[in-house]
Amino acid sequence: MEDIEKRIIEQGDIVRSLKSKKADKPTIDAAVDVLKALKLERDALVPKDAVAAPATSSSGKSEDKKAKGGFTLKNAKGTKDYTPQEMAIREKIFSTIIKVFKKHGGITIDTPVFELKEILSGKYGEDSKLIYDLEDQGGEKCSLRYDLTVPFARFLAMNGKEYQNIKRYHIAKVYRRDQPAMTKGRMREFYQCDFDVAGTYDAMIPDSEILRILTECLTALGLGDFTIKMNHRKILDGIFEVCGVPADKIRTISSAVDKLDKLPWADVRKEMTEEKGLDPAAADLIGEYVQLKGGEELLERLYSDAKLGANARAKEGLDDMKLLFKYLNVLNVSRFTSFDLSLARGLDYYTGLIYEAVLEGSAPPTLANGEKARASVKKGTDELDENTVGVGSIAAGGRYDNLVGMFSGTNKRGEPNLVIPCVGISIGVERVFSILMQKQREQIKSNEVEIYVVGLGGVSVEERMKICAELWDAGFKAEFAYKLKPRTQNQWDACDRDMIPFAVIVGGTEIENNVVKIKDMRTKDESQKGGIEYPRSEMISELRKRLSQI
Amino acid sequence: MEDIEKRIIEQGDIVRSLKSKKADKPTIDAAVDVLKALKLERDALVPKDAVAAPATSSSGKSEDKKAKGGFTLKNAKGTKDYTPQEMAIREKIFSTIIKVFKKHGGITIDTPVFELKEILSGKYGEDSKLIYDLEDQGGEKCSLRYDLTVPFARFLAMNGKEYQNIKRYHIAKVYRRDQPAMTKGRMREFYQCDFDVAGTYDAMIPDSEILRILTECLTALGLGDFTIKMNHRKILDGIFEVCGVPADKIRTISSAVDKLDKLPWADVRKEMTEEKGLDPAAADLIGEYVQLKGGEELLERLYSDAKLGANARAKEGLDDMKLLFKYLNVLNVSRFTSFDLSLARGLDYYTGLIYEAVLEGSAPPTLANGEKARASVKKGTDELDENTVGVGSIAAGGRYDNLVGMFSGTNKRGEPNLVIPCVGISIGVERVFSILMQKQREQIKSNEVEIYVVGLGGVSVEERMKICAELWDAGFKAEFAYKLKPRTQNQWDACDRDMIPFAVIVGGTEIENNVVKIKDMRTKDESQKGGIEYPRSEMISELRKRLSQI
Repeated sequence: MEDIEKRIIEQGDIVRSLKSKKADKPTIDAAVDVLKALKLERDALVPKDAVAAPATSSSGKSEDKKAKGGFTLKNAKGTKDYTPQEMAIREKIFSTIIKVFKKHGGITIDTPVFELKEILSGKYGEDSKLIYDLEDQGGEKCSLRYDLTVPFARFLAMNGKEYQNIKRYHIAKVYRRDQPAMTKGRMREFYQCDFDVAGTYDAMIPDSEILRILTECLTALGLGDFTIKMNHRKILDGIFEVCGVPADKIRTISSAVDKLDKLPWADVRKEMTEEKGLDPAAADLIGEYVQLKGGEELLERLYSDAKLGANARAKEGLDDMKLLFKYLNVLNVSRFTSFDLSLARGLDYYTGLIYEAVLEGSAPPTLANGEKARASVKKGTDELDENTVGVGSIAAGGRYDNLVGMFSGTNKRGEPNLVIPCVGISIGVERVFSILMQKQREQIKSNEVEIYVVGLGGVSVEERMKICAELWDAGFKAEFAYKLKPRTQNQWDACDRDMIPFAVIVGGTEIENNVVKIKDMRTKDESQKGGIEYPRSEMISELRKRLSQI
Repeated sequence: MEDIEKRIIEQGDIVRSLKSKKADKPTIDAAVDVLKALKLERDALVPKDAVAAPATSSSGKSEDKKAKGGFTLKNAKGTKDYTPQEMAIREKIFSTIIKVFKKHGGITIDTPVFELKEILSGKYGEDSKLIYDLEDQGGEKCSLRYDLTVPFARFLAMNGKEYQNIKRYHIAKVYRRDQPAMTKGRMREFYQCDFDVAGTYDAMIPDSEILRILTECLTALGLGDFTIKMNHRKILDGIFEVCGVPADKIRTISSAVDKLDKLPWADVRKEMTEEKGLDPAAADLIGEYVQLKGGEELLERLYSDAKLGANARAKEGLDDMKLLFKYLNVLNVSRFTSFDLSLARGLDYYTGLIYEAVLEGSAPPTLANGEKARASVKKGTDELDENTVGVGSIAAGGRYDNLVGMFSGTNKRGEPNLVIPCVGISIGVERVFSILMQKQREQIKSNEVEIYVVGLGGVSVEERMKICAELWDAGFKAEFAYKLKPRTQNQWDACDRDMIPFAVIVGGTEIENNVVKIKDMRTKDESQKGGIEYPRSEMISELRKRLSQI
């Protein structure tokens, strides 16, 4: 906490200094963005009322408000409330994505927030320690879901007869006892947004449609240019085989390879040999392969590689990739992709194609002092400090053909009773949210009210209510002031604050003459003065006409 | 479990017997509805694959499937998965309600699924034992939210400067360690749907709009006739005062009164006197008041009541009700309401108007044997067995002016730092869901696909993909078979199963001639035979025209 407050103060100084020196706009904007990101991160860590305290307070710390019972008024660590403005952006993101999912025949299911503990056990490797357990209050042992994929596989295993084939999407919250860091999109409660195709189909057909869905989503969200890095688990396995990696080291070497997007090869090689005890000769061989990236042409090079081309597993992966490229060309998706042999992905359960989308704008940000931020591995952990490398990965996924079988029980020969191959994508909606929140420059209209009923002079609340009821009956979104005698200025202010396009205005004279005045609140057009008068009987049709023109 | 299986078997016998006797349709339908409700309840208690076992199996029990790890494949107790068909109905309900909320200027916020334990403590009286706690894994003590109202009050207390006034809605899951019973809409994980108006306004204005919102929601959901029972805490308090109820007995006597909708007065009187030790004379006095119900005219009777009319608290409540009736008349809501002095509502935090909406069709169902089901109080509990009294209450709420103050801390004089009066409504969306699921007779279209691309003869998957990509580019919802050589019949079946209105059909000839055939799949119109032929360049415009006419 103190650390981040310190960084906010320092960054604030940098911004002020740049402004006073009249630095160019992009430089100032970049520095402001860093400041905003820091503040977002701080907001995630502390109670809202504490945040309201000036960030430059001498202590750098804020007092928690104590309520009557003497407890601290705040959110649980790593969780936050979403304000109406934030919800408006979040709903926009979800509806944009859902529209794409539905275009491709997606349907949704819902699973409970908690599962039996044993359902989640053994699915997440080391990360299992991050699972939230419910207290044993008598009854079953339960845990909060860690992702949406394992519950989906459990659902398929339980309902496999009905849902052998399903294109399902699921947008819901998941829970991880992680160290919260808003700028990494890493809260303890956060949304995941998954689309998966389950079913036995011909090779790479659903896989290619998933990548098409991903490009449609990222384009519709307006996040700027992106690249989808693709690789194949069988090719990677083939590489490790031909380079002589012992079987028990494959997973750990694979996770070292996965860092190549953030670290130079020399550092990764060092991790493989010094930390993980791999023979340096093997590491060098690996290095020759995993630094390769390109398009379809890379396939031919790998096919003709003396060692890899002869490896049976690698061959299977290459055949898949060849087919994939053919389909991606038809679907107009190839131009977004990069065949990248350094992509390995962390999760154990992938069995085939894997992919990860990266935003082009997510290179290390230029710091206010002009230096490029450098990626740095945090001491004592296996993790990169993503604060210094921009937003990075925005979506990821792959094929997992064996996960459902883990839940289905086995027959006498030890084979799973049910095999449902799956391929899916998870879109990092929390990162999308952070990016779009930071891009947001305009005021957000969080309510949808179209018409405000303004009463002038001594018009009674019943008269205003009556007009509102007429408007509601006609299907309009309308409001009036909840006061017996609202001040006129407060009513105009309500229109402005909520960006309400039209006012229906009544005073004593209007009521007497059975008319209303309608005023377009978006324009300062003098010709309409206090509003244009209409017979009460024409109010609905006039408003309908005006609203249809917005 | 065994009990419910037994009831399902018995009810199944009744249905079969009625059918064989050719009983009239309403009688059979009623018996079938009871059977369906029982099955829904059973589904909520057992894993799906167990449900798939015949209900009439000799043991009445089903074996749980054991997966590889030897664990039981099922949902945690009191939770369930929602299938795509169920999700389609649920989304319809939510969107219907949200549309009404937005018409009235509603905006939404989101709060975390878990809160600090101390935030929830002391807010739910005896029901606090139903709160789910998270295991202490180091760090803060947290609990799953029990409702949405307390987190809302916490949000207001933390953000009171920015949100002194807010019309907020929140539809989200809450958690209670209750005995699950699907027919009561009582799962351990279930949705709540709240709309609340916070802010200091003139009396009864927001209160009356909330009741207008409620009538719009229930009407839009198409649940049939309903009545909104209304009462006022201050009138009830006045009644208890003038009838001589000791202060420490007011809550418990109030909860006895609340049962008058399900039990005859004699039973309630007995509970007051024998179980709760109230002076029989006081009980008789109470009985004279709380059995009163009616409309606006009841107000005058109470004002002129010698004792109640002279009671200061009762007078405040009566003044509120008088104002409310005036506004409800303007808003066209009075016709749905009943001023019912037996309504007491369980929660402690209400301070003014209280209300509860009841469906007219929710009288005890006629059982298949022709007898009326009777309400019965379960032994050893304080609760009615709602299985036998139909669905009952569908929404409830009231005014709570002091809840936010409980979170805001107090000043030196012990007064809350922040007072934000609130009034709100909670719509029982799970009950709405049960009712609409049972009413559902038609097939539900769970995906939204408009066009299926059918390949005939040896048309390649790339050709079908290419057409689909064109359709997606144009914004259509389209699918194709994920097979290299799909069988023709399977493609027609996919159209029928998912109720897809149009097929775009291509065979070798069509590809060669650069044309497609379009077939309306909703009609068996012979004139279109295998579809009507269009130049490929007109495919998009023709489909756009046809879809606009649906």
